[in-house]
Amino acid sequence: MALNVGVIGVGMIGQDHIRRLTTVLAGSQVVAVTDVDLARAGTVAEGLPAARVHPTGQDLIRDEAVDAVVVTSWGPTHEEYVLACIEAGKPVFCEKPLATTQEACLRIIDAEVAAGRRLVQVGYMRRYDAAYRALKDVVTSGAIGAPLIVHSVHRNPSVPPHYTRDMAIVDTAVHDIDVVRWLLDEEIVATTVLTPRRNRHGGELQDPLVLVMESESGVLVDVEVSVNIRYGYDIRGEVVGEDGTAALADSSPIVVRRAGTYSGRVPEDWRERFIRAYDVEFQEWVDAVRSGGGATGPSAWDGYAAAVVSDAALEAMRSGARTTVSLREKPDFYDKV
Amino acid sequence: MALNVGVIGVGMIGQDHIRRLTTVLAGSQVVAVTDVDLARAGTVAEGLPAARVHPTGQDLIRDEAVDAVVVTSWGPTHEEYVLACIEAGKPVFCEKPLATTQEACLRIIDAEVAAGRRLVQVGYMRRYDAAYRALKDVVTSGAIGAPLIVHSVHRNPSVPPHYTRDMAIVDTAVHDIDVVRWLLDEEIVATTVLTPRRNRHGGELQDPLVLVMESESGVLVDVEVSVNIRYGYDIRGEVVGEDGTAALADSSPIVVRRAGTYSGRVPEDWRERFIRAYDVEFQEWVDAVRSGGGATGPSAWDGYAAAVVSDAALEAMRSGARTTVSLREKPDFYDKV
Amino acid sequence: MALNVGVIGVGMIGQDHIRRLTTVLAGSQVVAVTDVDLARAGTVAEGLPAARVHPTGQDLIRDEAVDAVVVTSWGPTHEEYVLACIEAGKPVFCEKPLATTQEACLRIIDAEVAAGRRLVQVGYMRRYDAAYRALKDVVTSGAIGAPLIVHSVHRNPSVPPHYTRDMAIVDTAVHDIDVVRWLLDEEIVATTVLTPRRNRHGGELQDPLVLVMESESGVLVDVEVSVNIRYGYDIRGEVVGEDGTAALADSSPIVVRRAGTYSGRVPEDWRERFIRAYDVEFQEWVDAVRSGGGATGPSAWDGYAAAVVSDAALEAMRSGARTTVSLREKPDFYDKV
Amino acid sequence: MALNVGVIGVGMIGQDHIRRLTTVLAGSQVVAVTDVDLARAGTVAEGLPAARVHPTGQDLIRDEAVDAVVVTSWGPTHEEYVLACIEAGKPVFCEKPLATTQEACLRIIDAEVAAGRRLVQVGYMRRYDAAYRALKDVVTSGAIGAPLIVHSVHRNPSVPPHYTRDMAIVDTAVHDIDVVRWLLDEEIVATTVLTPRRNRHGGELQDPLVLVMESESGVLVDVEVSVNIRYGYDIRGEVVGEDGTAALADSSPIVVRRAGTYSGRVPEDWRERFIRAYDVEFQEWVDAVRSGGGATGPSAWDGYAAAVVSDAALEAMRSGARTTVSLREKPDFYDKV
Repeated sequence: MALNVGVIGVGMIGQDHIRRLTTVLAGSQVVAVTDVDLARAGTVAEGLPAARVHPTGQDLIRDEAVDAVVVTSWGPTHEEYVLACIEAGKPVFCEKPLATTQEACLRIIDAEVAAGRRLVQVGYMRRYDAAYRALKDVVTSGAIGAPLIVHSVHRNPSVPPHYTRDMAIVDTAVHDIDVVRWLLDEEIVATTVLTPRRNRHGGELQDPLVLVMESESGVLVDVEVSVNIRYGYDIRGEVVGEDGTAALADSSPIVVRRAGTYSGRVPEDWRERFIRAYDVEFQEWVDAVRSGGGATGPSAWDGYAAAVVSDAALEAMRSGARTTVSLREKPDFYDKV
Repeated sequence: MALNVGVIGVGMIGQDHIRRLTTVLAGSQVVAVTDVDLARAGTVAEGLPAARVHPTGQDLIRDEAVDAVVVTSWGPTHEEYVLACIEAGKPVFCEKPLATTQEACLRIIDAEVAAGRRLVQVGYMRRYDAAYRALKDVVTSGAIGAPLIVHSVHRNPSVPPHYTRDMAIVDTAVHDIDVVRWLLDEEIVATTVLTPRRNRHGGELQDPLVLVMESESGVLVDVEVSVNIRYGYDIRGEVVGEDGTAALADSSPIVVRRAGTYSGRVPEDWRERFIRAYDVEFQEWVDAVRSGGGATGPSAWDGYAAAVVSDAALEAMRSGARTTVSLREKPDFYDKV
Repeated sequence: MALNVGVIGVGMIGQDHIRRLTTVLAGSQVVAVTDVDLARAGTVAEGLPAARVHPTGQDLIRDEAVDAVVVTSWGPTHEEYVLACIEAGKPVFCEKPLATTQEACLRIIDAEVAAGRRLVQVGYMRRYDAAYRALKDVVTSGAIGAPLIVHSVHRNPSVPPHYTRDMAIVDTAVHDIDVVRWLLDEEIVATTVLTPRRNRHGGELQDPLVLVMESESGVLVDVEVSVNIRYGYDIRGEVVGEDGTAALADSSPIVVRRAGTYSGRVPEDWRERFIRAYDVEFQEWVDAVRSGGGATGPSAWDGYAAAVVSDAALEAMRSGARTTVSLREKPDFYDKV
Repeated sequence: MALNVGVIGVGMIGQDHIRRLTTVLAGSQVVAVTDVDLARAGTVAEGLPAARVHPTGQDLIRDEAVDAVVVTSWGPTHEEYVLACIEAGKPVFCEKPLATTQEACLRIIDAEVAAGRRLVQVGYMRRYDAAYRALKDVVTSGAIGAPLIVHSVHRNPSVPPHYTRDMAIVDTAVHDIDVVRWLLDEEIVATTVLTPRRNRHGGELQDPLVLVMESESGVLVDVEVSVNIRYGYDIRGEVVGEDGTAALADSSPIVVRRAGTYSGRVPEDWRERFIRAYDVEFQEWVDAVRSGGGATGPSAWDGYAAAVVSDAALEAMRSGARTTVSLREKPDFYDKV
């Protein structure tokens, strides 16, 4: 039987996930939706074969026809919905951030541990990208020796007007934070933010910046965050080991020779770059939930750790100083499941 | 409602397509199977939620629960099943070849034209590969001027013991024949086969060979076919235009620096290289059929043209001479639909 | 002591070699010049520290101050000067072609064999290009197995108005002919010319064309010659072996990311692409001559073989048929020296 | 007339430069040598057509037959010889470092300014590398906008036993310090050293490390220094601008496809990577000196600035803190010449 999914929040991201769950993936259908804008929820539901509109997320979660929930509503509402899902014993896929404060993340962890099974997955899609997976495979194979440094580059052609100074960390670099924790299989213990001369396209933003992180074993991570670099959406990563390195390759499918150059395409935006990763992320979630597991991807712990490291990085950006990261002790629960 | 698919032939390819239709794609399920080996059909059916086993392909086609048919049986049986599908008015996806003789292909074309709607799609998956699609986009954009030459390279690491001399054309180069017709949007009018010194791994095969083709407008196509080159499965293509060229890029997701080199991965086999193309091919077919269209991909005409060009190439290989290609007049039907 | 060089022919190429011999290389100086245009010879001599102007090439060759001769005059005059150098026992570097007819090449061979030592070197500079040398190293290392096919691409952005139909072979493809003989260490035994649809920039030329060659051991060589492709000067080559391939890499020193693409530079013309090869070619010649050897580079035999293969290719282009190549028996002399 | 060069110090580097001056470049010869090991000097002189052996560097500098001097002796002796050359009014090419203390560098600057003309050139060869020059051309063209960040990678496969902790800065990163000052045409104003987990091959060294530098206008520079990375000698650099980036490309002349990968060669060591840069560096120096200019390459000021930044970086490595760079006011002299 197909997995019956309810979706809370049907803005751009929510609608894209609904498209994915209904027309791209195997084994899922969307049977319920809701949104802070109920009219919008109604319109979205009309485009679906058989989806009920619920007045609130809580109602949707309680709907017996709903097997699992996708939360793509506004960040500050995530905690409430995720906790309700745990209480209802329903698997929940929550877009990042898991919650907007460390304390909220901890409440979710506590609830999930108390429930005794993994129900929560957080939407860090890079872990599902084929290139990042190949990178991790090389790192864990030992072919390049123990990792010592990670160079990461996160470039956006531009950002919308509502993009604030802090979003370079909490919205943008947070993907690098998560993917590095996953690549290294280690926690981050300290952060520093280096602030170069600013891009004229960046207004009041600190753009670019370099986020420096240190892992438990001493791996040094540098992340260039440039969010107005105009030329394209460019994600790069290189793990420097004791005997060699492994790096994401350019992803252009073709090379054109024309007018004095040979050239490949840089993705236009994150949709183009990561569209497949989103598909794989959701297919694996649907498969895991259908087979009775709650979730196999990024956990509430990962959401919490990303929040704590982000907070440290924000503090580091404000103070100019190295800021240590203090994580609560990790429940065994997250290693076992 | 999901598309209810019946699958005729559940060997390796058939089973892979069943996996695809049931666990990868949206909107399809497999409700009936058959095979020359009924025990094998039974085993496959047991792995599916609700699939009936039919004693023959004809029975399966007649099954009212079957909306559309996938034919992945032995080549010589294709004609019979495709004709039966047309007669039954059911869309059919037939793995290449459409049929094993030109005459059989023509009978299928006649039947489909008489039926008055596109029901037949042939499994040339390269047209669904992202890199080939990007290549075609550049060609049709005019950015490199009118095409003059196409260089194609088709390399297999090895071939199985039953691979015969003719299969270099009818099994291997036939993919290049189809994709070049599609890239150029033109028919092939002549072929020549050049026979280099033979690879010691190739036994009695003419391996490698270079298939030369000429298109209606005079574009020259050269296809290197090497089927025992050991190092990997390597598909390359470059369209040379009046002002520039466009070529498939290397597809490695990462670059490793180690032991004196930087290196990328060459796919191990066609599955690795084209797995996504197969997924896209079938998803688009399922979507087209569900939306009431019979098929939008490679047509019976394409299957026929591939057969005729292959036959000419076989003749050219035997004779050593340039062999012209003679196609029947193309029914308007195939331009209109 | 520096090598005292006399230069016959001080057009563009001659002047460039004079610049090379006087301001780039170690151990050489230009002490005599001549030209069909004596005024031009005079002007060039004025730019040199101490160069005499001779009224004829024969006078220059007889000049006792001249240790070695560079011939960069008009092709039809080459034979006369090269023969005179041999008679005078002076090493001669002759720009391609060695001579304009096979018969003239044979007269040179006979004279050199009679003289009993290598005095003649022909200007095929690709053998001195670092990338071609690396390619040959891989081929001879056995790392890719025995060569079976060579793909060569020779693209010019444009050609001057005096460029004729035959020059695609005798002026352009002749470089590929020489470099393939050298890469494979084998003679060419047959040629065919394939004639694609013509480039609108190419006027009456057969542009592009594909020159097909067969070597003694059956290696198949295809050379795309495109001389009006606008985007740049692009030389590519790939040797396909039994177990792998080796190919010239793109040569751009940097990669620029800008406006939606990452891109590298294609050389503008042959000067940019092969400037270092010319330097190395002449330095090795100067070194060889100074150390008492007459020449170590492309020999009169190589010049003869290139002429015979070119003639066969011209015949093949005219006739449309495969044309065999008939070489005189190779004097042992050329294997021994 | 050829430039008559005297060489002080004929160890490995000195001998390589002698080879270059006598057998690679145009317009120079070596007429005098000396060394702390006079027997070695004698042996080297024997290999040269006409070179006198001097008992001391001072004697060599006084030799009237010597037009210009190359100093490749032990670092602590550089100051003395360079000052003597200035006093003698002879152009001097001094391998890095210019001198081993800032004070010594300043004494050289004072002497050169007093002499009223550029006589001193310091051996930072990267400025002569074709790829770095192409990189600088793009930066100064404005094509990528104003530079904001520079990423630099400096990897050695291994270092000799005498390599000390400080040499990662003063011997290795000093090349990056110089080339970044030149690329940006700005001074460095502060440095920080980040210290990742250490490579097991690196013994007591801080290997790798990341040197962070800030330029006058706020450009942030990060330099990864890895000196035991085994796989090869790998120099990379990327300038991140407001609208795009430019980066050194991989330099492999060929690509080999074999055993599951396509691969290019990483240089084995700095000789392989920069051999051409050394040739160009010396040819330009010889040409400049012969044409009456004293030097056009890296100046005493550049040598001084590199020393001051290196000292700051050493201090930063010891303290773990950001260390500012304090340069003396730059004499107009160095902008004018």
